[in-house]
Amino acid sequence: MSNPIRVTVWNEYRHELKNEKVAALYPQGMHAVIASFLEKDPAIRVRTATLDEPEHGLTQEVVNETDVLLWWGHTAHGDVADAIVERVQKRVLEGMGLIVLHSGHYSKIFKRLMGTTCSLSWREANDRERLWNLAPEHPITQGIGRFIELEQHEMYAEPFGIPHPEELLFVSWFSGGEVFRSGCTWRRGHGKVFYFSPGHETYPIYHNPEIQRVITNGVHWARPLVRIADSAPNVPPVEPGPERS
Amino acid sequence: MSNPIRVTVWNEYRHELKNEKVAALYPQGMHAVIASFLEKDPAIRVRTATLDEPEHGLTQEVVNETDVLLWWGHTAHGDVADAIVERVQKRVLEGMGLIVLHSGHYSKIFKRLMGTTCSLSWREANDRERLWNLAPEHPITQGIGRFIELEQHEMYAEPFGIPHPEELLFVSWFSGGEVFRSGCTWRRGHGKVFYFSPGHETYPIYHNPEIQRVITNGVHWARPLVRIADSAPNVPPVEPGPERS
Amino acid sequence: MSNPIRVTVWNEYRHELKNEKVAALYPQGMHAVIASFLEKDPAIRVRTATLDEPEHGLTQEVVNETDVLLWWGHTAHGDVADAIVERVQKRVLEGMGLIVLHSGHYSKIFKRLMGTTCSLSWREANDRERLWNLAPEHPITQGIGRFIELEQHEMYAEPFGIPHPEELLFVSWFSGGEVFRSGCTWRRGHGKVFYFSPGHETYPIYHNPEIQRVITNGVHWARPLVRIADSAPNVPPVEPGPERS
Amino acid sequence: MSNPIRVTVWNEYRHELKNEKVAALYPQGMHAVIASFLEKDPAIRVRTATLDEPEHGLTQEVVNETDVLLWWGHTAHGDVADAIVERVQKRVLEGMGLIVLHSGHYSKIFKRLMGTTCSLSWREANDRERLWNLAPEHPITQGIGRFIELEQHEMYAEPFGIPHPEELLFVSWFSGGEVFRSGCTWRRGHGKVFYFSPGHETYPIYHNPEIQRVITNGVHWARPLVRIADSAPNVPPVEPGPERS
Repeated sequence: MSNPIRVTVWNEYRHELKNEKVAALYPQGMHAVIASFLEKDPAIRVRTATLDEPEHGLTQEVVNETDVLLWWGHTAHGDVADAIVERVQKRVLEGMGLIVLHSGHYSKIFKRLMGTTCSLSWREANDRERLWNLAPEHPITQGIGRFIELEQHEMYAEPFGIPHPEELLFVSWFSGGEVFRSGCTWRRGHGKVFYFSPGHETYPIYHNPEIQRVITNGVHWARPLVRIADSAPNVPPVEPGPERS
Repeated sequence: MSNPIRVTVWNEYRHELKNEKVAALYPQGMHAVIASFLEKDPAIRVRTATLDEPEHGLTQEVVNETDVLLWWGHTAHGDVADAIVERVQKRVLEGMGLIVLHSGHYSKIFKRLMGTTCSLSWREANDRERLWNLAPEHPITQGIGRFIELEQHEMYAEPFGIPHPEELLFVSWFSGGEVFRSGCTWRRGHGKVFYFSPGHETYPIYHNPEIQRVITNGVHWARPLVRIADSAPNVPPVEPGPERS
Repeated sequence: MSNPIRVTVWNEYRHELKNEKVAALYPQGMHAVIASFLEKDPAIRVRTATLDEPEHGLTQEVVNETDVLLWWGHTAHGDVADAIVERVQKRVLEGMGLIVLHSGHYSKIFKRLMGTTCSLSWREANDRERLWNLAPEHPITQGIGRFIELEQHEMYAEPFGIPHPEELLFVSWFSGGEVFRSGCTWRRGHGKVFYFSPGHETYPIYHNPEIQRVITNGVHWARPLVRIADSAPNVPPVEPGPERS
Repeated sequence: MSNPIRVTVWNEYRHELKNEKVAALYPQGMHAVIASFLEKDPAIRVRTATLDEPEHGLTQEVVNETDVLLWWGHTAHGDVADAIVERVQKRVLEGMGLIVLHSGHYSKIFKRLMGTTCSLSWREANDRERLWNLAPEHPITQGIGRFIELEQHEMYAEPFGIPHPEELLFVSWFSGGEVFRSGCTWRRGHGKVFYFSPGHETYPIYHNPEIQRVITNGVHWARPLVRIADSAPNVPPVEPGPERS
């Protein structure tokens, strides 16, 4: 395929403006760092969008022109307008990839597509996290070895309130004693969804080359082949059978 | 288990009041017929609820006391209050069985739990439908042979906009030439969901003993073992490791 | 259901005869301990069978009269006759529950039903294992809290060469840094399969009340409703259509 | 990816030599027709192999050099040597795509990878078959509309003795009144498996451009990214914890 993959990186972009530690790690916002490593891939064309832009940066035109959307949110899920969530959900179901990062597990869009609580147990305590690679044959794990190790990270633990994943790519081990399904995929309508848990704002997670590799792979994996509008057609019979009135 | 299964049969109950043909088949409403055959099972205790009752008959108390909810709606999905839908969704995720019947595929509650369009193709033309039994070992299909035949029914066809079913129990053949996944199950949170497509209001479907058997079996299958409230706890480490700050 | 569940506990029964440490834990064999706790459930009727009995104790008559088979093997998988493996596989596909324990992951019967290598990484080093309960609503996990902790156990780690589980009930954390899908289910034909990893022979795992509870629950869960012989019938058309020659 | 996909088309190649009707449709064998349409795709490089060649044409070298294997067999499944089946299974689990066609549902290799009977009901009676496309977003269905229609074909019906498909791409309608899951995928080890039911030898199925399109798409979809040999390593701990002896 010669057309570039059109990616929109959506970020809540509030922590970076209020918290010095986060600002030091991500001076232009996490979206800028994510966009930056994605842009190194010549097959990918990136734009960014943030909560406080008009329509959260997700106008109908932007959504129309997006093949894969990345979503990072944490502190302001409730500020995302329902109309925009519906627009994004509709677009996923028509065939747009969606990569939900870290605390995006609690975003309106993820909860809507999953239908469940998406709750988990958590702790901010500098745990060591090790993401075990369960599927080395999968496009998303290419370039990753037995595991990815994060020296310090927020802890996310089971039970995780999601529907049974269709593919389970990563399971995390935490030094505090917990486990977590940290890389999961689902199909929803004509779109593909990938949840990937790394990315707490106070750690330099998106500067990690292995995390960058997984997200870049995820963009390729989530790229749609179609866009199909919803319909519920009243259809004539295919067979000419006489038995129908 | 000696406690009865507490079932609530929810019905939109509008067709029966407006359409003579439907009223002839279901003089007290479809919910009355469904309740009536379920009550023949001594393990089941039934109540009914309808759209035009206060809170659609689904007060918090009723929902609390329901183990398995059946849902039939068609012409007035939009009249179901969002607050009630949220109440029901929360209860399913805590552990309540949900059986969605026929045109309930387009109900708010089913679309919320699935996260997808739940659209399908359709035709009202007296097709013959044959539901093939793909899982004769399953609790829901006990008592059913190779297939269930409906001499006349509304046609529902693929593509059906649902997430990949976790169990596919029935696939329908239609005389007009189509197929449909007519019996599907999913887990959502701590609750179980069963979609079963028979039940167009202008045919005597719920008087059919095989359909009654499947729905009764479904009630037993969907009975929950637990009720667990949502939580997202901040948890201390299980391990006493020194590496955490 | 008033009929008892007919369980056969199959054990390789060689470690116990050769290794003093194992013999001290299981003087009459692991099968005796497993049979003993299962028999406390009045709904269960147990027999045992071991490798060195004629036909490994799994005559056609025994297999016919078994509703749920438990399988523990380790050092002598290759000594199990292929004809007996085929007999057991056929019976599972007709509808017999199978619970595969610990090193039974490498048994012929499990590999046949899975179609995969069933390989895993391992270490005998007194790791602490914590089996996290991912599905508190499931019949198999009833009576179990957030996790089961085993103070010392053999370590089994991902990647585990199994098909994607249909249900993932337990994921284990190990003190050495690994994770493992330690409780998984699949349907195969008309039978249900549950793999549960605890049970290394040098630890008193089957004396643990929580492990006993899971296995007892598993027997109830795996109980079949049917027995259906394989067939590939040449069938006449259901429809009388004129278009067929 | 610039390397070609190395495809081996395996055919039993007996019907064509004995049956005039089949020989008229496939004078050089079905494998020759399949190879011929696949070769039109410049990304694909094809070889063929047949049952009566030494080692059935599937020497270790050929298997090593195959990315995707297609399998058509019918009348002589029992003549395929177990050692070759093991070689192929091992290669699939290491990461080789496998496309099983039509009566290959009863091949040793398919039954081994599935673990089930793979039985179905059938009838040779010139039924009309209509394969409904359930997943228009999937790589395998690209170029296919609502359905593929086969004017005459052998009938294959449910129940089909396979594990629950991970993706259900096609469901067939038959004029005789039956349905069938005619396009299914599974992952097995590091390899991908696609079962596609069209292809009875007495009909010109592999001359049908839509069938050719699906199979060509299937080859692209099944292409592996890795080859990973089986291992069950004894691994040292990742964590240096003092608690292990």
